[in-house]
Amino acid sequence: MDNESEIHYLDHAATSWPKPRQVIDAVQEALLEYAANPGRGSHRMAVRASRAVFGARKVLAQLFRIKNPNDIAFTPSTTEALNLAIKGFLKPGDHVVATAVEHNSVRRPLEYLKRTIGIQVTYVDTDQTGALQIGQIESALTASTKLVIVNHSSNLLGSILPVKEIGQLTRSKGIVLLVDAAQSAGILPIDVEAMGVDMLAFPGHKGLLGPQGTGGLYIHPDIDLVPLLHGGTGSQSEAIDQPDVRPDRYESGTLNLSGIAGLRAGVEVVANETVEKIHNKEWSLTQRMMEGLLAIEGVKVLGPALGEPRTGIVSFLVGSADPSETAFILDQHYGIAVRSGFHCTPLAHGCAGTTETGAVRASVGFYSQDSDVDALIAAVKEMKQHYS
Amino acid sequence: MDNESEIHYLDHAATSWPKPRQVIDAVQEALLEYAANPGRGSHRMAVRASRAVFGARKVLAQLFRIKNPNDIAFTPSTTEALNLAIKGFLKPGDHVVATAVEHNSVRRPLEYLKRTIGIQVTYVDTDQTGALQIGQIESALTASTKLVIVNHSSNLLGSILPVKEIGQLTRSKGIVLLVDAAQSAGILPIDVEAMGVDMLAFPGHKGLLGPQGTGGLYIHPDIDLVPLLHGGTGSQSEAIDQPDVRPDRYESGTLNLSGIAGLRAGVEVVANETVEKIHNKEWSLTQRMMEGLLAIEGVKVLGPALGEPRTGIVSFLVGSADPSETAFILDQHYGIAVRSGFHCTPLAHGCAGTTETGAVRASVGFYSQDSDVDALIAAVKEMKQHYS
Repeated sequence: MDNESEIHYLDHAATSWPKPRQVIDAVQEALLEYAANPGRGSHRMAVRASRAVFGARKVLAQLFRIKNPNDIAFTPSTTEALNLAIKGFLKPGDHVVATAVEHNSVRRPLEYLKRTIGIQVTYVDTDQTGALQIGQIESALTASTKLVIVNHSSNLLGSILPVKEIGQLTRSKGIVLLVDAAQSAGILPIDVEAMGVDMLAFPGHKGLLGPQGTGGLYIHPDIDLVPLLHGGTGSQSEAIDQPDVRPDRYESGTLNLSGIAGLRAGVEVVANETVEKIHNKEWSLTQRMMEGLLAIEGVKVLGPALGEPRTGIVSFLVGSADPSETAFILDQHYGIAVRSGFHCTPLAHGCAGTTETGAVRASVGFYSQDSDVDALIAAVKEMKQHYS
Repeated sequence: MDNESEIHYLDHAATSWPKPRQVIDAVQEALLEYAANPGRGSHRMAVRASRAVFGARKVLAQLFRIKNPNDIAFTPSTTEALNLAIKGFLKPGDHVVATAVEHNSVRRPLEYLKRTIGIQVTYVDTDQTGALQIGQIESALTASTKLVIVNHSSNLLGSILPVKEIGQLTRSKGIVLLVDAAQSAGILPIDVEAMGVDMLAFPGHKGLLGPQGTGGLYIHPDIDLVPLLHGGTGSQSEAIDQPDVRPDRYESGTLNLSGIAGLRAGVEVVANETVEKIHNKEWSLTQRMMEGLLAIEGVKVLGPALGEPRTGIVSFLVGSADPSETAFILDQHYGIAVRSGFHCTPLAHGCAGTTETGAVRASVGFYSQDSDVDALIAAVKEMKQHYS
């Protein structure tokens, strides 16, 4: 396996690969033709750059059913979007309800605010498969709950959380709902209005098929956040504070123009294929993978049962083998790219019962093939025979 | 002027353009071949991604004479680097000395901390040309001064500030020195040790010739900052707080891999050409531009006098013409890309005496030609005849 083109890439939950040709072309076109500074000049290249950025905002707004594209702030990552949402919204004394399957980019900002400004946090456990009942969220709410944070899909278990039901609950109580769409943007249908989502943090480089270094945060027009970054905005240069106007308020500094141009192309691919088709394909691949893995004695598959809804993530354990060793052998001997470890979500391992071991995570994307899945199954089968 | 290839691009202080072929190729190669998630997996693509990121860190460390490449944290912009440095370092009651030619990405974070946690800030004026005497900094220091912030080169006036002298002063007093190298990285020699620079914020997409969405902060090993972002680090997933290990501590979230690969290629171009050669070429172009502009009656050129050191920035006013109108005509009628307005540095206009008017800013880069400069001079000459 010296040829990288022979890789079976099953690490889509980390980043999707390959990127569509349109994405690569859009990045190159931006770099070659109009990589000026959007919003910072009026010459034609800067104008073209501004248009490209607005075009990306527009297709994202359409995808997530956001009325005003300017309510989307571009960020370099979901992590930064979540930091902006959490640190920009919460005040001393606020209570937050989050789930145990949140990523460290939710948990660590919350724990930081707990230590520094004094907030209270309740983490609601899921069951072992990553499922959560709406009643668990409801009973965690207190009179000082200002924010509920929920991972649309667990990056360890692939389970899909009931965002719409949670949104109905939070809207009825006047509580703000922040959704981490790291594993769902471009993979599950998202309609911020119908689902009652007040803030949506999303990556550009996973299900939306764009380049790394892209992402964003939708912020409901009624919500005002303290910006995470203060700096140049290209508007109201003379003012001491950040301008109120969106998206400038939340987008200080030069944007990743070529990345955003690529993201736009990725979103267009997703919109043309449709999220439903992408999800169906990924779901079928996970079912094929699960059937194959479950047929191997001693392999334990985490998350929702066969036949149940899930995103493209299948985490598993091969007998008592160390997950990082399993992942290493899969890569070195079989050219299969998966990820091992704790996946930046330690509490989710508590729910899944894998706190001591971690897990191997295989994750499919829209461009994954049956042959990738079959290669993984065959490799695990062989490893089980050889190494146990 | 419908053909973009005929543009005379004189907006290098906003972003350099065109990018070297090597940069565009490196971005494309990363996207096509190894756009995995650096530091988040052990499979070969992730390993190659990690190596590419470390390679970029290494060439940057060589360029700035930084001993340990891991003391550089990648950020998506200089703005974010400055926010990390300023918000991560300062504590209530601290006093800061900054100059009046700082960018809003310094001034606005400082003013934000003034309002929220209570710090004191002294802005030291430059003279009308953007020059500053070391004694002015010295006399602004108080017993509670913890940080001095200085723009290596003014983004309005092109003046070069005496960083090395300031560094000697701050080192002798045990005060930390933060340098904003937005207009100097890749353009002026920088040696953090010899210059006494404790933190250096730099863009990837200006003088270093990389793509937008890249930049970084050098942090002296003795300085510990509160991270701006809390989140996944790929290391110590189970810990509640950010790990201490660098660069992970300051780099939560997926990095802009293809951007950083491009940045590496850009830095290599700069290192091969040498910063000295680049600076000399840019300086010669500014002298040509200044001579031409100064020969036109009624044109006022800001910043250091002819023959004096400066970076590639030449700001000017054409009689009493509105700078934004001048910039608009230069673009529309002559295909010359410049920038007008306040350039996110309002106090610098106070020094220059252009608070009411703003200014037109032309800025050259390493790929600028005499013909670009001559086109600007001819256009301004013609405009002066037609419009006044």
